[in-house]
Amino acid sequence: MKPLSDKSILIIGLGLIGGSIARGLKQANAKQRVLATDLDNSALSEAIQDGAIDAGGDLDDLCPEADIVIVALPPLAISSTLPKISAILKHDAIVTDVGSVKKHIVTTANELGSDFAERFVPGHPIAGSEQSGYSASRADLFEQRNVILTPQIDTRTEALAAINDLWRTLGANVLGMSLVKHDEVLAATSHLPHLLAFAIVDVLVKQEQSEDIFRYAAGGFADFSRLASSDAKMWSDIFVANADATERVLDAYIQNLLVFKNVVHDKDHA
Amino acid sequence: MKPLSDKSILIIGLGLIGGSIARGLKQANAKQRVLATDLDNSALSEAIQDGAIDAGGDLDDLCPEADIVIVALPPLAISSTLPKISAILKHDAIVTDVGSVKKHIVTTANELGSDFAERFVPGHPIAGSEQSGYSASRADLFEQRNVILTPQIDTRTEALAAINDLWRTLGANVLGMSLVKHDEVLAATSHLPHLLAFAIVDVLVKQEQSEDIFRYAAGGFADFSRLASSDAKMWSDIFVANADATERVLDAYIQNLLVFKNVVHDKDHA
Repeated sequence: MKPLSDKSILIIGLGLIGGSIARGLKQANAKQRVLATDLDNSALSEAIQDGAIDAGGDLDDLCPEADIVIVALPPLAISSTLPKISAILKHDAIVTDVGSVKKHIVTTANELGSDFAERFVPGHPIAGSEQSGYSASRADLFEQRNVILTPQIDTRTEALAAINDLWRTLGANVLGMSLVKHDEVLAATSHLPHLLAFAIVDVLVKQEQSEDIFRYAAGGFADFSRLASSDAKMWSDIFVANADATERVLDAYIQNLLVFKNVVHDKDHA
Repeated sequence: MKPLSDKSILIIGLGLIGGSIARGLKQANAKQRVLATDLDNSALSEAIQDGAIDAGGDLDDLCPEADIVIVALPPLAISSTLPKISAILKHDAIVTDVGSVKKHIVTTANELGSDFAERFVPGHPIAGSEQSGYSASRADLFEQRNVILTPQIDTRTEALAAINDLWRTLGANVLGMSLVKHDEVLAATSHLPHLLAFAIVDVLVKQEQSEDIFRYAAGGFADFSRLASSDAKMWSDIFVANADATERVLDAYIQNLLVFKNVVHDKDHA
């Protein structure tokens, strides 16, 4: 296996996560060839100017020369991109992703056959923020952050080792977890909180006093509205991709709120 | 009217808010005499050592010599304290409070008679945090923060001016608002978010994966758990004191969550 520094790394999607991977790799070791594709050509040219990538272009041109392909797109776009990659990938290349929901992505990878599935390492850096896009990316985004890998029984050891190596190079702590557990834990710690934040902003704009509500927003609300300023399209993807686990924890939450409501109603101060 | 710097100011309750008022006043103008009472004697002696107050002691001893009395207690404790103050107050003293719910406090003040009510200026500095106690207090806590005053028709102009002067000395922006509007806006921007945060932590500790949930807590959840680390007793007071407005906005929120739940359930991605 070539060491990480001799590899060609292709990043599909040069947003907050993809852009930060590129910057971080370049900061850690300038010898790697870092390639990128993005629908937004200006992100590519900006990244070339920044020295974060060596070249940008089309997937069809760049994918066949990559040793490692990192799919850094929103969850639903990841599963729709895997078949394209699988068809044009170098025979010994390794593929990973950054999706915050893993089940549907792994299902897609498995449907592409064992030759692809063995070389696919499902990953999730827990390093998102309410900011998005290449302009928000930073070389140190992953430092001291957790990256969860959810390898399958047939994932090849050297593929897992290479992706582990990649994230450690970026300063992250790498953890293994089953994909079911990953999706349940993330539903509770990330997907539900974001859904609640979107819901509260939605309620408050409809209140009679909404202008004053936003003007005098106190500490409590500021945290919610910051969360709710996250990329709505991406989060809509996430809620849908992780619908079962999200619905389960949301149900438990609504039941709990009904209890709280009764306590407030009864002014039960016990 | 004596200028602020010649007055004796009594702070009842030397917690985050009361302690920060004391420190801020001393930083702004060391000539004032700042007195304090607190159930916790160690907070008083710490504040004397810090130079934040000139003397600490019992309400019965200190209240009769104060020109301005600031009741810096949790909301329900404020209304139970006003009658005691009213009975021993200097005839021309001014009283204010920092309660985050105003209706029951103003009702209590009015019940004490017009002589007291005229000199009572209901106030609310929007500067709380999840920290509490004298040890968390800071001289600059109110700088650039909003303080809402909810004066009544019979509030004396000089009383309002003195309290306005007090908060401006501490660097705050002072705003006027009706008490009904205050309680509604705060229910939406502060009381509801805190209630939601307490509810989510309550739900998550009961989940099967709760250990991992708290270990891998992502960005979204961290904001909620920080809010939920706020003083539970004080917030319980607040929810009860502002039960009507809180229940109204909580109802709207639960209805909205049910809509979101259906969207997630139907994987409706429109």
